[in-house]
Amino acid sequence: MPYTTLPLAFTVGKTSQSTVLPETFVPATVPGAVQLDWARAHQWPDWNYGDNCKQYDGLEAFYWLYRTVLEYPTLAPGQKLYFVSQGIDYKFDIRLGGKVLLAQEGMFTPVELDLTGKAQPGDVLEILIHPAPDSGDRTTNRAPANKSAKPAVSWGWDWHPRLIPLGIWDDTRLEIRPAAHIKSAALDYILTDDLSAADIKLYVTLAEAPGGGMVEWVLDGPQGTMVIRQSAEAARQMVFTNVLPAPQLWWPHDHGPQNRYTVTVKLYSAGHQVLDERSWKTGFRRVRLVMHEGAWDRPGECPATQRECPFTVEINNRHVFAKGSNWVAPEIFPGLITAETYRPLLELAKEANFNLLRVWGGAMVSKDSFYEQCDALGLMVWQEFQQACNCHPDDAGYLKVLDQESRSIIQRVKPHPCRVLWCGGNELFNSWSRMTEQSHPLRLLNRNCYELDQYTPYIYTSPIFGVRHGDYRFANSDKTEVYQIFVRYEATAYTEFGVPGPSPVEILREIIPPAELFPPKPGTAWETHHAYKAWDGDAESWLLISTIERYFGVPASLEELVANGEWLQCEGYKCLFEESRRQKPRSSMALNWCYNEPWPSAANNSIVVWPARKKPAFEAVKAACRPVLASARIPKFTWSAGEVFTCQLALLNDSYAKGKPGEVRATLQLDEGTVITAASWKFAAPEPNHNLIGPEVQFQIPDAPFKTLTLRLSVPNRPELDSTYRLLAKRS
Amino acid sequence: MPYTTLPLAFTVGKTSQSTVLPETFVPATVPGAVQLDWARAHQWPDWNYGDNCKQYDGLEAFYWLYRTVLEYPTLAPGQKLYFVSQGIDYKFDIRLGGKVLLAQEGMFTPVELDLTGKAQPGDVLEILIHPAPDSGDRTTNRAPANKSAKPAVSWGWDWHPRLIPLGIWDDTRLEIRPAAHIKSAALDYILTDDLSAADIKLYVTLAEAPGGGMVEWVLDGPQGTMVIRQSAEAARQMVFTNVLPAPQLWWPHDHGPQNRYTVTVKLYSAGHQVLDERSWKTGFRRVRLVMHEGAWDRPGECPATQRECPFTVEINNRHVFAKGSNWVAPEIFPGLITAETYRPLLELAKEANFNLLRVWGGAMVSKDSFYEQCDALGLMVWQEFQQACNCHPDDAGYLKVLDQESRSIIQRVKPHPCRVLWCGGNELFNSWSRMTEQSHPLRLLNRNCYELDQYTPYIYTSPIFGVRHGDYRFANSDKTEVYQIFVRYEATAYTEFGVPGPSPVEILREIIPPAELFPPKPGTAWETHHAYKAWDGDAESWLLISTIERYFGVPASLEELVANGEWLQCEGYKCLFEESRRQKPRSSMALNWCYNEPWPSAANNSIVVWPARKKPAFEAVKAACRPVLASARIPKFTWSAGEVFTCQLALLNDSYAKGKPGEVRATLQLDEGTVITAASWKFAAPEPNHNLIGPEVQFQIPDAPFKTLTLRLSVPNRPELDSTYRLLAKRS
Repeated sequence: MPYTTLPLAFTVGKTSQSTVLPETFVPATVPGAVQLDWARAHQWPDWNYGDNCKQYDGLEAFYWLYRTVLEYPTLAPGQKLYFVSQGIDYKFDIRLGGKVLLAQEGMFTPVELDLTGKAQPGDVLEILIHPAPDSGDRTTNRAPANKSAKPAVSWGWDWHPRLIPLGIWDDTRLEIRPAAHIKSAALDYILTDDLSAADIKLYVTLAEAPGGGMVEWVLDGPQGTMVIRQSAEAARQMVFTNVLPAPQLWWPHDHGPQNRYTVTVKLYSAGHQVLDERSWKTGFRRVRLVMHEGAWDRPGECPATQRECPFTVEINNRHVFAKGSNWVAPEIFPGLITAETYRPLLELAKEANFNLLRVWGGAMVSKDSFYEQCDALGLMVWQEFQQACNCHPDDAGYLKVLDQESRSIIQRVKPHPCRVLWCGGNELFNSWSRMTEQSHPLRLLNRNCYELDQYTPYIYTSPIFGVRHGDYRFANSDKTEVYQIFVRYEATAYTEFGVPGPSPVEILREIIPPAELFPPKPGTAWETHHAYKAWDGDAESWLLISTIERYFGVPASLEELVANGEWLQCEGYKCLFEESRRQKPRSSMALNWCYNEPWPSAANNSIVVWPARKKPAFEAVKAACRPVLASARIPKFTWSAGEVFTCQLALLNDSYAKGKPGEVRATLQLDEGTVITAASWKFAAPEPNHNLIGPEVQFQIPDAPFKTLTLRLSVPNRPELDSTYRLLAKRS
Repeated sequence: MPYTTLPLAFTVGKTSQSTVLPETFVPATVPGAVQLDWARAHQWPDWNYGDNCKQYDGLEAFYWLYRTVLEYPTLAPGQKLYFVSQGIDYKFDIRLGGKVLLAQEGMFTPVELDLTGKAQPGDVLEILIHPAPDSGDRTTNRAPANKSAKPAVSWGWDWHPRLIPLGIWDDTRLEIRPAAHIKSAALDYILTDDLSAADIKLYVTLAEAPGGGMVEWVLDGPQGTMVIRQSAEAARQMVFTNVLPAPQLWWPHDHGPQNRYTVTVKLYSAGHQVLDERSWKTGFRRVRLVMHEGAWDRPGECPATQRECPFTVEINNRHVFAKGSNWVAPEIFPGLITAETYRPLLELAKEANFNLLRVWGGAMVSKDSFYEQCDALGLMVWQEFQQACNCHPDDAGYLKVLDQESRSIIQRVKPHPCRVLWCGGNELFNSWSRMTEQSHPLRLLNRNCYELDQYTPYIYTSPIFGVRHGDYRFANSDKTEVYQIFVRYEATAYTEFGVPGPSPVEILREIIPPAELFPPKPGTAWETHHAYKAWDGDAESWLLISTIERYFGVPASLEELVANGEWLQCEGYKCLFEESRRQKPRSSMALNWCYNEPWPSAANNSIVVWPARKKPAFEAVKAACRPVLASARIPKFTWSAGEVFTCQLALLNDSYAKGKPGEVRATLQLDEGTVITAASWKFAAPEPNHNLIGPEVQFQIPDAPFKTLTLRLSVPNRPELDSTYRLLAKRS
């Protein structure tokens, strides 16, 4: 946009009453958070370390007042002055000379205020941030958030401390614009069923139509060639219609290219000068949520009705097995997030062979750069609204805010072809939430998604009928393991499952005071960082030290503890991802809980440690998510000398490439020594996107002591299909 | 409305091509149907008799042209001439002097055409009816209707011949109105959660605002006392807001009074003359669909998510067990239906102790008088949209018609407090339909219901998760009976179940030619009237003569056949209704398939024969639906001499009245002779809306021959709770 953009320098102070001025103001960094400004000014230590985060407790209960002096040159005739903010968290009043210009609840709806004729250079603009929302409900930690559209995670979660950011969290500035400028421009399209053409509508709204002026829009193809160019006399509301034949489609990275088109809209004056311009990238894809193959072919007992919701992602008429993870905010303070925060995390997600991220509902809607990068990397995005584990009521005030916020969110994300699914929020149909498909907030979101983005599916919540969340551990208290548990399930989609693991030793040293480091104990920084009592009724999560000790004995050092915990996380995740995939086509999705974390945890189900560091489990998951691999269904983790080891072979295949026949050879090695070979399995060329289930193979374990068992599957001349599993000797 | 209303005399003719005039025109009755006019002119016999309906086959494939000469006095200055129709079936063009004034698809959207300045007295107005919609899909009989919003039942159903009405089916006339008149007036309200007040909005739209004029609206209470009166200067769009404290609520008849308020809106000229007036009755009730008592208390296995949809009707904060039936159109030709068609049927529905009717989706939306009578009688209405057993596609053209039609339907039904549930249509999630909650037609309907009638629940279809349709017979081919089948089910709602029975002998004599009357055979009028091959793959429905013969032997006469079939229907329905009720609170609804029928069938699951005549099963159902009754869970239908007869007693109680303790005495009588008495059951006062489940009681059947067993439950001094079951001796 050819505007003059002027930065704003803010100070901020806190006060207990909205009508009383703060006693002191401190410099504010924008975007940021009031807590960050306050902590910086008072030299508080890093909240990531030890128990420091507790120092922030209660800051969210104050009013916070931002102040800035408007500094800008005198406006030329016809120029307009705007105050623009992409996001202010959460409820606020914007005042000029003491007069309220805007009172808003909701952090995802951008602010655009025309100050022309109202402000003078040197005037003070104030933003009064109200205390964090509080419904008064105290039934759970998060219940105070149940009438607000602010992410509930800030109230504390099993991997997030209670720390509730407030303040200006996204780009904020003054702009000097010509009177005639573009207010909004958006592209909408419908792909024909056979994908042969896109019916396009381009909507343009002008603040003012320049007399004799013109609007032109251009669509440039992925290779930079112009494919559409249209223009018309400028008017306040304009709709261009066009047809794009043979669009080059956007695909997730494991199924095709990430073709993106560039839309450019220009507003010309009568004298053919460019007054304003908008340009963005978009892509064309057809996405549906459909019943899995065979779903309708069950025995025809009356009432013979659907017992599961459709949950297979269909992209460009192709069923796609979705592999990925649950994405949570990469920082506690959204104001700290930049494109560079997302970049390494998203590149790792692609490296992990993930093709879908669920942007989990308790957390933030991401900033624009997140979706841009997902578009470019070919990562599909399941986007939730900000509801999680709460009963959000049929309350007129709440519904009004949710309406406004959801419309803003849909409009923000809609230009991005990566979006494949809207969802009302997390675990809302669960007994701890007790919402239903009759809940007005969920019907409202269904309506808004249908109205504003009809061709992207919407679900009320996850899990829904047929879909599974959990479990979240390597073994239950009754000693049944992931190996035995998951084969019993028959979900259509596994959208949350986890195996926790400790963070690497170096991370632990960075966040836990030396005196508390080993052995880990409850009531220390280990607990603050979720190693203990992460959730109600579970004293041991997420370190689960008794499980580690059951398999490996009491660790002698921090290093041994971490290595053993990592081992369980690696093998557990391999089992869960591979079993979910093996159940295709009934199962169509495998998303572990969770991918990343908003601060450094001591132990977590995540596979990437804050800010963007791989755990060993990352590599295990990456291997389990390869498009094609040899896989073994293993019955248990620990084995004894003299036992017969059995496992069932499979070729897991999510690829649509022409399959090739081959052979899987399985060997079992005891420690670094004896190698036993089982009968090999010759497999035929797999059908596209179909697994091959192979035979059960057996090994006689020698009657000699050993510590570890390594199962190796190898496919001659195709090492990219090879798999390895590390198992353990049973403790006597 | 103080308008001058002028009737219109139509003629109608058929033609194969829209551009070719019909060769002959016949007099048309309006409202009616083109087929009725044609048949009358050509003296065709009654379609209800024998195979006569087949003669109508194919008439729906023609174009039909209605013509009328406009006869009206010269308009005074300021007067307007309107052509008004409440409904034209299905796709049509309205032409004046050969010019198309309106082209519409959709029979439920009223027509209002301003002819002022366009027409002259003596002009010819034409309505060209297009052939019945046809998507070209031939996979089922009804598939041609899958891209239309016309009730699919006309294409033939297991209780409806293939006969597809077309033409003007609702009130149609000319109106002379003042230029300033009311275009629409509608009342909307939200009841507070505690029911202590209604926030009211009254919307008025004027065709033109009379200069200096005024609009006044008045709300009169159930006893005729004025409770609200507001006025304001007339404007094109007006919204009045008000609060009604302590509204007298509308209740279903078995839970409270049918309080109704009268809304009157008047438009006054500057000179205080009434220019226009609208008046209608409405009522205040809060309705929700909620989870049944105990639904959230199941074992907490992860993911511990909702496995059923909420299906308990809550009226005015009270859970209500819904008892009733599936309503189908009471005539094949909707143009024949008047308030007097509905009246006896609805009065019988109330007499049957029904409190809810499901207006089934394959059939018609009823005329206004249906909902008026349901309001007055205290019958709740579950209203479906016109989709049934088809896969209605995400097709832009279809969605546009569905949008228009559904908005019209919602606006038509919304004034009526009897409406408690909107539903997308019948069996759309079943394998023969294959729609899902991602289907755009169902998301569109959810949106429109939310937008236009937020405070009435909406479901996608029936059955949905947890809800059951079927079975529809007294015994399966494997000889298991309703007694054994239904106790196994665990549905949250039984929204369709049936036991067929033959029509009474007199009805059969009226519709089946004497030569075909006995014994019944396939290929005769018995088959045309659904006694055989009523649905694919079932040669025996709905007479199911082999079942009757299995229990009773080969009948010697038509009278004997009918009496035996009626016996099974009576006892089967008692079992099904009582078992559904016994499963409360898990079960919250019992609706049999079906209540009535659109023509005289030979055998049907209905309990009322066309046009409004009770079958014996009506009385059995009525007994099973009493608010409170003594009930027996009976294990089987046939018994032998010397056997031990067992049954479990219960007190079924849907009442909120204070319960009383009592005693159930059970006796068993052999034929008209021996009476055996079992131990009696003393029951405590039941909690409101809670059943009491009693003991199992036993009778030793003497070792002597008998034909029938009669089980009688009696409650001393409270004969209104007594129940009787007629069972049979097992054939040797």
